[in-house]
Amino acid sequence: MKLRVGVVGLGTVGRGVVKLFADSNNRLNQGLSLQAVSARDRERDRGVDLSGVRWFDDPLTLAAEPSIDVVVELIGGAEGPARRVVETALARGAHVVTANKALLALHGAALADIAEQSRAKLLFEAAVGGGVPMVKALKDSLAGCRATALAGILNGTCNYILTEMEASGRSFGEVLAEAQRFGYAEADPTMDVGGFDAAHKLAILASIAFGVRPDFEHVRVEGIERVTLTDIRLAGKLGYRIKLIAKASRTEGGVEMHVRPALLAFDHPLANVGGSLNALVVDADPVGQLTFLGRGAGEGPTAASVASDLMELAAGRAGPAFGRPLAELASAPRATPAERGRYYVRLLVADRPGVVASVSERLAHEGISIESFLQMPAPSAAAVPIVLTTQACPRAAVEKASMAIENLDVALEPPYVLPVEESGLRLVR
Amino acid sequence: MKLRVGVVGLGTVGRGVVKLFADSNNRLNQGLSLQAVSARDRERDRGVDLSGVRWFDDPLTLAAEPSIDVVVELIGGAEGPARRVVETALARGAHVVTANKALLALHGAALADIAEQSRAKLLFEAAVGGGVPMVKALKDSLAGCRATALAGILNGTCNYILTEMEASGRSFGEVLAEAQRFGYAEADPTMDVGGFDAAHKLAILASIAFGVRPDFEHVRVEGIERVTLTDIRLAGKLGYRIKLIAKASRTEGGVEMHVRPALLAFDHPLANVGGSLNALVVDADPVGQLTFLGRGAGEGPTAASVASDLMELAAGRAGPAFGRPLAELASAPRATPAERGRYYVRLLVADRPGVVASVSERLAHEGISIESFLQMPAPSAAAVPIVLTTQACPRAAVEKASMAIENLDVALEPPYVLPVEESGLRLVR
Repeated sequence: MKLRVGVVGLGTVGRGVVKLFADSNNRLNQGLSLQAVSARDRERDRGVDLSGVRWFDDPLTLAAEPSIDVVVELIGGAEGPARRVVETALARGAHVVTANKALLALHGAALADIAEQSRAKLLFEAAVGGGVPMVKALKDSLAGCRATALAGILNGTCNYILTEMEASGRSFGEVLAEAQRFGYAEADPTMDVGGFDAAHKLAILASIAFGVRPDFEHVRVEGIERVTLTDIRLAGKLGYRIKLIAKASRTEGGVEMHVRPALLAFDHPLANVGGSLNALVVDADPVGQLTFLGRGAGEGPTAASVASDLMELAAGRAGPAFGRPLAELASAPRATPAERGRYYVRLLVADRPGVVASVSERLAHEGISIESFLQMPAPSAAAVPIVLTTQACPRAAVEKASMAIENLDVALEPPYVLPVEESGLRLVR
Repeated sequence: MKLRVGVVGLGTVGRGVVKLFADSNNRLNQGLSLQAVSARDRERDRGVDLSGVRWFDDPLTLAAEPSIDVVVELIGGAEGPARRVVETALARGAHVVTANKALLALHGAALADIAEQSRAKLLFEAAVGGGVPMVKALKDSLAGCRATALAGILNGTCNYILTEMEASGRSFGEVLAEAQRFGYAEADPTMDVGGFDAAHKLAILASIAFGVRPDFEHVRVEGIERVTLTDIRLAGKLGYRIKLIAKASRTEGGVEMHVRPALLAFDHPLANVGGSLNALVVDADPVGQLTFLGRGAGEGPTAASVASDLMELAAGRAGPAFGRPLAELASAPRATPAERGRYYVRLLVADRPGVVASVSERLAHEGISIESFLQMPAPSAAAVPIVLTTQACPRAAVEKASMAIENLDVALEPPYVLPVEESGLRLVR
């Protein structure tokens, strides 16, 4: 008996899934059969043959249809139809495969609960890392290990923008506009460039890695909107590349999660992950550090992840949604350890004698030593960009010094502070 | 009912597995229980407490013991006790978890057959890539994909030697001797430095990736014994690093597999995999290129892979040994396509006028153009090392030119030819 599959949402990924079923040699067809689809516009040409497949105008009707064993939810969004489709399907005991990271990050525990009660399975390899099997790696391969930290490049749009800015010397705004024209970035880019998409994914991965409930609210999020070409160039001269890093650590106090731009030395394991690639580095005992890398989005990679979940269902091999039964997932306290590390500080100051002395004095007052210092050729004679990196110091000290510098007469804009990400994944504290 | 586990072989990995069971917080203990061990010397202090565990002097008696549900075979070797232990356990319906790549590469299909007949499971994540979940990635994550090529660094000893030669400027012999002193290399290093260990692992990975029977006999194997410090230095000056690459490709004619040292440009995805790390790059449709990286050997990483297999058994989630039932594994014809690519050629010639002209002429005669050319400061006035890289040409042409050069009066040793590995994984042909 083949599992009967219904696909809800025929955008890029949905089309990719339908194409995989259309290939009669694909092993998907051994254990599963595509029976139904639902999307907004029946008339639209999607370049795939849907003639043998039942069409549903209403995704909820498909989700409730008793002859469908597996609902593939590819609508997206944490609320609205996507959430209702997943809840409806799970509640009646149908399995759900989804690529919906926002839904899982915000309502993952509640959905896993519905699934457990009706003995349905909830799988979501495609929600994180596109084609890179991050979810399965954490669930299965690290099952006998204790994960201590994970760090990743989880948003292809941000990584593409930062990579392109460096490669082409164009501004954030120019590259973003181009990415929007090409369809790599949404019309409203906030979810991506604001770091929220990466934060959704991080909350899901941390849940599986550390055995805690997904807890998006506790991810500290900072986007890449303030990263300038000057930052990228000067960081490069100092031996660093700027990346949006999503990172979670298990500490004595609980779990700490953040998404933020950071400076990575060129030999950091994530520094050379370019373009729209995604990568995850995991530290676990006793396996050590593992790295997973591949294409983080797009029709083929994401459909392949949906397919691997479907194959797992067909083989009767799917386990609990977040790797262990909900009752075993802890509610980890939010850890906000006192951070310590090296920092990058970018200043825009008036070109006057004594400026460097004033800045240095404010840093010294907080006990901060300067590691390196660079002055950029000034775009105008009156305003001089300066960047510096500090030696290791408490984050609080850098923030206090920043405020003092901001209050100087010569400061023309608030200092911009980025952390330097060290190669070891353990939380800098 | 917990699965009752017996571990056969208490070397590095066996000790690591026992340690994992000794940690009462480890999830292994939820579904499994360590009941028995067998090793050669009962008196030896292994730094683990074996007091609650039944001791077997004879591994075969343990393998045949009906109260043991899972036999973990960590003896090693393609024949002898290891093979008999695995056969005995599988034949009576006990599951087997093993790290034995030689056994699987040579007898994998026969063992999978025994397992299928008795409905036992045969798992071997630890046999390939140490702690890197290469086997599970190919079995599970690529289940809906069509793999076209894979390339890896699969032998940590070779990679360590090549990395150390480059870093320290010492010879192959010196670094090998040191590795042997530190226990990184066996007293008889042939399996490692001769490329056979990597070839065993490649045969296993290719079987899973391409859905064919493991076929070690058809791997073309060349070791790193002839790689000199001169090669490493001159390749470096030309922008390349020398690595032992294991590579398998699906071609129209069948499956092509080889292990050999090759030149990788510094930006090749495998060029920066240093020391004892292992890595695998897979090309598959539609997921694209995936990379997996981590520690390729040692107590912790390998024990972690054994543990992930044990957890899979405990969850009742294990599938067929090579990812699909034996009847579905094809016997792929061996493909030996006409190779084409760029080549590195190292010569040792007498320091006489006209030498370069003679060499160039032999290459030109086979239609080979020179891409780059370097002459090394001569260790003796009479013998000058020369290296060159060719433009793309048929391998056969390089071999013919090599023979012609070898016959020149001025040639002091046979030319040493290494391929340049291009970044795309598709077979160079």
